[in-house]
Amino acid sequence: MVSIRKLALIGVGLIGGSLARALHRVRACRNIVGAGRNEAHLRKAQELGVIDAWTLSFAEAVKDADMIVLATPLGTMRPVMRQIARHISPDAFITDVGSAKASVVEDARATLGQHFPRFVPGHPIAGTEKSGVEHSFAELFEKRVVILTPLPETAISAIEGVRDMWGKTGAEVLTLDVAHHDQVLAATSHLPHMLAYALVDCLAQMQDRDEIFRFAAGGFADFTRIASSSPDMWHDVCMANREALLAVMKVFDSHLAGIQAAIENNDSAALRNIFTRAKNARDAFQSSREPAPAPSRRTPVQ
Amino acid sequence: MVSIRKLALIGVGLIGGSLARALHRVRACRNIVGAGRNEAHLRKAQELGVIDAWTLSFAEAVKDADMIVLATPLGTMRPVMRQIARHISPDAFITDVGSAKASVVEDARATLGQHFPRFVPGHPIAGTEKSGVEHSFAELFEKRVVILTPLPETAISAIEGVRDMWGKTGAEVLTLDVAHHDQVLAATSHLPHMLAYALVDCLAQMQDRDEIFRFAAGGFADFTRIASSSPDMWHDVCMANREALLAVMKVFDSHLAGIQAAIENNDSAALRNIFTRAKNARDAFQSSREPAPAPSRRTPVQ
Repeated sequence: MVSIRKLALIGVGLIGGSLARALHRVRACRNIVGAGRNEAHLRKAQELGVIDAWTLSFAEAVKDADMIVLATPLGTMRPVMRQIARHISPDAFITDVGSAKASVVEDARATLGQHFPRFVPGHPIAGTEKSGVEHSFAELFEKRVVILTPLPETAISAIEGVRDMWGKTGAEVLTLDVAHHDQVLAATSHLPHMLAYALVDCLAQMQDRDEIFRFAAGGFADFTRIASSSPDMWHDVCMANREALLAVMKVFDSHLAGIQAAIENNDSAALRNIFTRAKNARDAFQSSREPAPAPSRRTPVQ
Repeated sequence: MVSIRKLALIGVGLIGGSLARALHRVRACRNIVGAGRNEAHLRKAQELGVIDAWTLSFAEAVKDADMIVLATPLGTMRPVMRQIARHISPDAFITDVGSAKASVVEDARATLGQHFPRFVPGHPIAGTEKSGVEHSFAELFEKRVVILTPLPETAISAIEGVRDMWGKTGAEVLTLDVAHHDQVLAATSHLPHMLAYALVDCLAQMQDRDEIFRFAAGGFADFTRIASSSPDMWHDVCMANREALLAVMKVFDSHLAGIQAAIENNDSAALRNIFTRAKNARDAFQSSREPAPAPSRRTPVQ
């Protein structure tokens, strides 16, 4: 069922490309026009069948679009919004996919004018460490969470339109308060990326770096995978979610210092306590992600 | 080809059990006798076909054994060695699987007496976050590295015997200096475990822990998997490799502080530099783990 006539996709990378593929797969969108700064990338996206057409003009892309998705790095949101604002249709819904929301809301409030109530801040909690449309795939959002952070002035119709679009990708769509989103994501995503970057950078500068990487096992590969993420994108995330990220880094510091102190003081009880608490929390998190086992046939239904 | 008549396996968990399975699979060992403190675990290991027999007496286990493998947590090495020392055959090879080596060497030097030259400190760089013989599998060491850290007084025959045993599991066997092993492993394994434990413990104590874990994505699951590892085992690793671990934690601290400072100071260039350096190092590490692509048929052989 076609529900979007023309979707303007500003930024056709991993996330934007996967959204376009997912919508095409269920024929939810008649026409997806990609826009960006790199002609070669856009050509490739069209060749791959991800988008139906492309343009280097953001203004042209959004013209007559009933859905506008901003899927560019956070640092580019404001200039992009500024360029499209005058060309947005009066009934178009606008959303974004940025990993931090307060900064995008600020950008939108400063630039979108009359269109601001039809802007629904969004964030699909999905991705891989690989960037670019060539790594996009239609299943990326299946069973993943998309968080929308609408504001008091956001139109219900816009929220419903954006929710409907994401629902078609197989994602579960939830809403959260802007500040709360930014705190939660600072803790679960932005902080781990900082730790992975810091760890790999730290090891890469050691004298015996070749042996260090040679003797690293599978656990290390999993742990550091996110350090292969796009430096530009993560620079923007750090800047956009600066306050929340610095706050949670401070809390983390004190926890790591607690472990260090326990080791220094040979405090076995403290060390076992911390590790056991963490293991229990991690095991509970893992079980919550796994589907519940089917009820045993031997268990009588009361 | 049977090369070991009787293998005494002290500690039948994930690592010990997987070694026994791997040796049985290629019929490298006639008789594997497991020993430990928990009768139920040993019974289960025998039922699973992992070991051929079991005993609660370490002395009985090592009697007439030509290979003795110590696969218990690092903190138990010295008491176990003390108990077996008088019962070791004069031609038996002895090895261990501990994640830190200096402490085990100290334990062995203090307890094994005349048998010390036939003790070959070892460390298979393999494992999962799951403990226990029920999670053991014969393929665990395939294409993984086993590091031996022999000493100047270690007998060549013992090194060859232990190298031969590990070779039969499909592992690549390398040697390293004791102190160097402990430094390298502190960086690539022990430090990442501390970061994962600290992160999960930190998040688990936050007010909105339920939402935090609910909105965590796949990257977080990978990043924190190692926080599900055995608290007792990791307590012992921290204590055994205290100095090397504290040293590398200090270096890590300064790198994380560098990222924090760059965010605080809005230092975009510094942040991009760090992330790019780390991404390049991680990408290079990943390529080195992946098999080299087959040479193109179009490339003429010179």
